[in-house]
Amino acid sequence: MKAVGIVTEYNPFHNGHIYHIQQAKKETGADVVVAIMSGNFVQRGEPALFDKWTRAQAALENGVDLVIELPIFYAVQPSHLFAEGAVKLLAALGVRDMVFGSEHADVDFLSLAQQAPSVAQGKAFQDKNQTFASAYANQLEAETGFKLENPNDILALGYAKAVVDLAANIKLHAIQRVTAGYHDSTFSDEQTIASASSIRLALHKNKLDKVQNVVPAVTLQNVQSMNNTIDFEQKFWPLLKYRLMTDTVGQLSQVYQMAEGLEHRLASVALGEPSPQNYQNFIKSVKSKRYTFARVQRTLLYTLLNVKVDQMQAAMQAPYLRVLGFTDVGQQYLNTIKKEVTLPLISKVDRNVTKNNLRLDFKAGKLWQMLANDAGQQQDVTRKPIYVAGKQ
Amino acid sequence: MKAVGIVTEYNPFHNGHIYHIQQAKKETGADVVVAIMSGNFVQRGEPALFDKWTRAQAALENGVDLVIELPIFYAVQPSHLFAEGAVKLLAALGVRDMVFGSEHADVDFLSLAQQAPSVAQGKAFQDKNQTFASAYANQLEAETGFKLENPNDILALGYAKAVVDLAANIKLHAIQRVTAGYHDSTFSDEQTIASASSIRLALHKNKLDKVQNVVPAVTLQNVQSMNNTIDFEQKFWPLLKYRLMTDTVGQLSQVYQMAEGLEHRLASVALGEPSPQNYQNFIKSVKSKRYTFARVQRTLLYTLLNVKVDQMQAAMQAPYLRVLGFTDVGQQYLNTIKKEVTLPLISKVDRNVTKNNLRLDFKAGKLWQMLANDAGQQQDVTRKPIYVAGKQ
Repeated sequence: MKAVGIVTEYNPFHNGHIYHIQQAKKETGADVVVAIMSGNFVQRGEPALFDKWTRAQAALENGVDLVIELPIFYAVQPSHLFAEGAVKLLAALGVRDMVFGSEHADVDFLSLAQQAPSVAQGKAFQDKNQTFASAYANQLEAETGFKLENPNDILALGYAKAVVDLAANIKLHAIQRVTAGYHDSTFSDEQTIASASSIRLALHKNKLDKVQNVVPAVTLQNVQSMNNTIDFEQKFWPLLKYRLMTDTVGQLSQVYQMAEGLEHRLASVALGEPSPQNYQNFIKSVKSKRYTFARVQRTLLYTLLNVKVDQMQAAMQAPYLRVLGFTDVGQQYLNTIKKEVTLPLISKVDRNVTKNNLRLDFKAGKLWQMLANDAGQQQDVTRKPIYVAGKQ
Repeated sequence: MKAVGIVTEYNPFHNGHIYHIQQAKKETGADVVVAIMSGNFVQRGEPALFDKWTRAQAALENGVDLVIELPIFYAVQPSHLFAEGAVKLLAALGVRDMVFGSEHADVDFLSLAQQAPSVAQGKAFQDKNQTFASAYANQLEAETGFKLENPNDILALGYAKAVVDLAANIKLHAIQRVTAGYHDSTFSDEQTIASASSIRLALHKNKLDKVQNVVPAVTLQNVQSMNNTIDFEQKFWPLLKYRLMTDTVGQLSQVYQMAEGLEHRLASVALGEPSPQNYQNFIKSVKSKRYTFARVQRTLLYTLLNVKVDQMQAAMQAPYLRVLGFTDVGQQYLNTIKKEVTLPLISKVDRNVTKNNLRLDFKAGKLWQMLANDAGQQQDVTRKPIYVAGKQ
């Protein structure tokens, strides 16, 4: 069986994702689509709109055959670590082709990756008034002439660098992003494809009708049955404030990616009077020019989850393949590769989850439930992979 | 000037407290009443109904001349440490007489304290199916014939032991508790004095009218302007659950008074499915026969405040006299003793509070505000003592 790998967040699953799945099959002639999907929190450090099971279900009903969770220690990371984690899982699953969207599908990202500076080189060139992403892009442009400024290009280069660094036997296929730019905040009633961020924005504004042309039926149902789970900040902020009020600066300093005295700013702003009235204002008060909003937000998520540097490093050394769901074809593929997978394949977890490698995902699932008003079912213990009968 | 000391929680301030103040003056002929009062959390580990400033105000309007905060590291403790802390502060303030209620005012508590076993001896006799309080009471009865079973007697003995242990120059005066037993849960419309716990119960049931005969006007006003701040458990439980979900068992084990594997039970119950629906059920699930409800609740408060053993021990070594308010007479008394006080006298704190000895009270104040829906004013930074013109 020939498998093609895609890397996704599906936040939420929309028509553009269906196009991506179809193109992936067309481009590679694969008969199995394997999606590596972020779990309950996405790369920007935010909780996903719907839990990982709901999003896996939507994907399986719309062309994906196997959904594997990208563990939080890869999913909530800067793009190079996100990409590396995803490529590592695809390689372990024996996937030989990978398809991703890019704003410059004509670029040979593999060749670009071979010429590109390393992350350490990018950091060395960063000054006090710029983010790592800017420093890296400037350095890359100086060395190769390519201007790296679009989010899908950044991920594309990340995948390519990971393939190079891991010496993975994976062929990369870039497909041109169409219609919807990543940063577009609005879309017209005539569009059938819109970006996930513009869809989230429409939902945030409670314009549920607006999204009906750009998402499949299953997502529309999810949207309609969602109660107030969107405005996570109203839940996130009090918990974060509580943690910043009660942890010592020394404890905060050990949180993953806490850097350059951010722990002092966090504690001082959270404990100050008047304390910030909301999460957005809080981030603005603590952010410096060196960090993007997403970077600070990821650090705040790890603060909320109380994930320390040592826990994170240990977790990143021990990845696994957590199966969220499959179709008939996906199940056949799993059976085919079962004996050759190079990472632990996990279909079900028991109460010992808190003691093993999945504990960060488990904690994240518990937090997601709390942020979503405990509305969701439990996220890990005793959950079985979703099965969707294939449309063969 | 002659001062008499009393030790109080005023949760809330009621007519029985006025009687206590009057009796204290009558019994000792003092012209200044000094109250050592718990801050925003009381001995049972619960947030006070009203913040420390509101309760100090009520006391100053009703006969108390000087209110000093009993720091949380003494206030939220078993009775012997609570009593020892209070006596230490009174001694530091030059108070030579102390008046307290007791169910057995005829008993010579000082003499009893001299014969009583030490806390360590009580612990040595404790078996797996009894609380420390029972073990201690049994041992005391065997040695002295006195049956220690009433809460005010327990505190009375605590004060007496503290006077003995600290060699404090303080004369003890027990006055008989009248009308309302500590554990009475109801009171009649004819009563003018009721216990604080029965008043809290009436308020909890939203029977505001019920309390009008048993509290002074100032408390009645406080009760009437209170919005939903009573049911703290609805606020307390989600935060506690969040902390238990995200801290490691190793981190929990370092919390003050976490003992005998309680941290494992706490984490396991909080993370289990279905998770307890409320705080009362949670405490019942984790409690063992060796611990009273209050003991477990204090540990949970310290868990919520993230107070570790070492922080608590350091804090207990460095007490202070935090002035919450005074009348003219109280102010005169302060001026008289100012040069002789044996502990730091603190009238105002600045933003450095988080770095000094008051940081636990500061954290507790922040938490209290959060539990009270942020309704209160800030509790420490820039607050000045309350001044109430004396009725001379």
